[in-house]
Amino acid sequence: MRKIAIIGIGQVPVDEHWHLSLRELAGEAVFHTLQDAGRDSADAIFVGNMLSGMLSRQEHLGSLVADWTGLKHAEAFKVEAACGSGAAALRVALMAVASGEVDSALAVGVEKMTERTGPEVTAALATAADADYEVAYGLSFVAINALVMQRYMHHYGWEHAAFAPFSINAHVNAVHNPYARLRESITEKEYQRARMVADPINLLDASPIGDGAAAVFIVPADSLKHNGKARPLITIEGSAAATDTLAVHDRRDPLWLSAAHRSASLAYQQAGLTPREIDFFELHDAFSIMSALSLEACGFAERGQAPRLAQDGEIFIHGKLPISTRGGLKARGHPVGATGLYQIVEVVQQLRGECGPTQVRDARIGMAQNIGGSGATIITHILKRN
Amino acid sequence: MRKIAIIGIGQVPVDEHWHLSLRELAGEAVFHTLQDAGRDSADAIFVGNMLSGMLSRQEHLGSLVADWTGLKHAEAFKVEAACGSGAAALRVALMAVASGEVDSALAVGVEKMTERTGPEVTAALATAADADYEVAYGLSFVAINALVMQRYMHHYGWEHAAFAPFSINAHVNAVHNPYARLRESITEKEYQRARMVADPINLLDASPIGDGAAAVFIVPADSLKHNGKARPLITIEGSAAATDTLAVHDRRDPLWLSAAHRSASLAYQQAGLTPREIDFFELHDAFSIMSALSLEACGFAERGQAPRLAQDGEIFIHGKLPISTRGGLKARGHPVGATGLYQIVEVVQQLRGECGPTQVRDARIGMAQNIGGSGATIITHILKRN
Repeated sequence: MRKIAIIGIGQVPVDEHWHLSLRELAGEAVFHTLQDAGRDSADAIFVGNMLSGMLSRQEHLGSLVADWTGLKHAEAFKVEAACGSGAAALRVALMAVASGEVDSALAVGVEKMTERTGPEVTAALATAADADYEVAYGLSFVAINALVMQRYMHHYGWEHAAFAPFSINAHVNAVHNPYARLRESITEKEYQRARMVADPINLLDASPIGDGAAAVFIVPADSLKHNGKARPLITIEGSAAATDTLAVHDRRDPLWLSAAHRSASLAYQQAGLTPREIDFFELHDAFSIMSALSLEACGFAERGQAPRLAQDGEIFIHGKLPISTRGGLKARGHPVGATGLYQIVEVVQQLRGECGPTQVRDARIGMAQNIGGSGATIITHILKRN
Repeated sequence: MRKIAIIGIGQVPVDEHWHLSLRELAGEAVFHTLQDAGRDSADAIFVGNMLSGMLSRQEHLGSLVADWTGLKHAEAFKVEAACGSGAAALRVALMAVASGEVDSALAVGVEKMTERTGPEVTAALATAADADYEVAYGLSFVAINALVMQRYMHHYGWEHAAFAPFSINAHVNAVHNPYARLRESITEKEYQRARMVADPINLLDASPIGDGAAAVFIVPADSLKHNGKARPLITIEGSAAATDTLAVHDRRDPLWLSAAHRSASLAYQQAGLTPREIDFFELHDAFSIMSALSLEACGFAERGQAPRLAQDGEIFIHGKLPISTRGGLKARGHPVGATGLYQIVEVVQQLRGECGPTQVRDARIGMAQNIGGSGATIITHILKRN
């Protein structure tokens, strides 16, 4: 396989962008990315998106983005894996370039969510779950996660307060990220007193939706050998995806993210690395329970012990394994189909040393993990500064 | 690039399958394909689909199909390019295997359309067009094609009746395809008297929707060297995709499918072939005007002369370039996200010599072309019997 380098990144602040249409959001991210990469064309474009058909009555985003950004005639498709669509688009882009079928590709994540009503968005998000065997019985997406969190607390004996550090860490890091939606710290007291959404998940356990777009530009690393740029070369050392049952109740163990374990293991193997060598981890903290399950499935904590890792401060910016270093889904915001590419952009920013007060010291190897549904699709990427 | 072979095909008859859910439709096609390939697992699954979120309230089809078919943990994503989603899924599967990231892949197209009302389906299909600059002004998908057909007739001086052979050919071929939705011949008189849909497109210019699923199993051709099977080896010799403006009115020339020209030219180049060497062509006859434009853009007819080719009988099964040999979209039916894979399955059937009364003589090289929107995404594949 050709080794792949990321030579450009771009993003739009996660926010309510009522003045920007779907194509304008994606366009902003693409223009920044092309400028950052110093390119004016791309052979292919893969657009990560989940909700455009339902919320914006627009499918066919490949052609939409190619057309709007002036990258006319480029091969372009939409890739969908629920909330994992962004990383899925990068994974497909990587395979496209690695195959030699194209020599450069843009992976773009875009989602426009805030112009619709809450019930419309909730119903659209529920299409990530099993329509026939979960949603048909009245389960919303947050309700499924609430059942999992309840089970985790019961099984391992944790109180709700044990999850506070995940949200506190995300919020304190977001303060320094101009692209984050919620740029304010929260206290443990605020966490405990937040309004309940679906017991035991309260408002500060849950990530906010938002409008947003993020993109990266990739090329074969060997095409850059003599470029002489001062900027460090960022390569993708590991890339893998795996699936699990769509419905959580079909899993032998609802507290084990087997697709996270599988995709992380494959990515470690490709990269020739162990969890100890990962300097920081942009995980999929759509709900605080997902942070705990991800850390455990990826080998960073024993089962049932992720809250301990958090309480010991190891997930904070100067801890052993900083997570959500730019705010994570929790505070940067979760424009679902774009999230996976925000994560990749943030890993690249860390590896380039551009993160100011939340810069991870000597960041050389970063991991990102994007989750579709309640763990049904999980995609892991490991990036390295060379 | 690793050369890719298709070792298994499977399909479900295009019909109103009210007793089959989305996963059951896809599952049927996958089970037939695995059996045909003699395999019981696949490293990756790429699902071509356009409408599941809007019409079935189910996204996340990668995991849905992997889960339902027992191909647990396989990497799996949905790929969308409007009505071109099926071939887009094959194109992504091909790149996945060619890159070496996976050693086998299923490309599955599935669409479930007939349980919703006409207006719901029409609105969902309109998301293939430009929501802001076409649909917002009241244009449905068929209306866009009607404007293009009107322009073609005006510009080249053809009467509506000149398009009759396209529909007559599709219908007569479908009679012998047990998977086709409309298995009945039509006469020229019936064609001319059919009920108007959007002037000049009448009911017999337009393909019917339907529920359906089709799939293929691909592996690197060199992995089969010593398999000793009696069945001929079918390889993908050319594969390319291109885009055009999403809105037809943005094109310099609305009568020229530049994305068809570009993707076909790239595919010919990869295969080292010219249009003369193509034995038959499964084109995207969603509307009869699209047959004409495709034939011209791909080099089979001079501009404005495709109806002549049809009138001369060259598109019929024993003509110079048989098209729609199993009924095409017009008579096999057009379950949109699945169509591109029905086309590939049909090309393989021809190359294997399994088509009985509509078998193309000495079929050795077949081409398939799948179109998303009104020519905004076009994907071309050239297959060969070795």
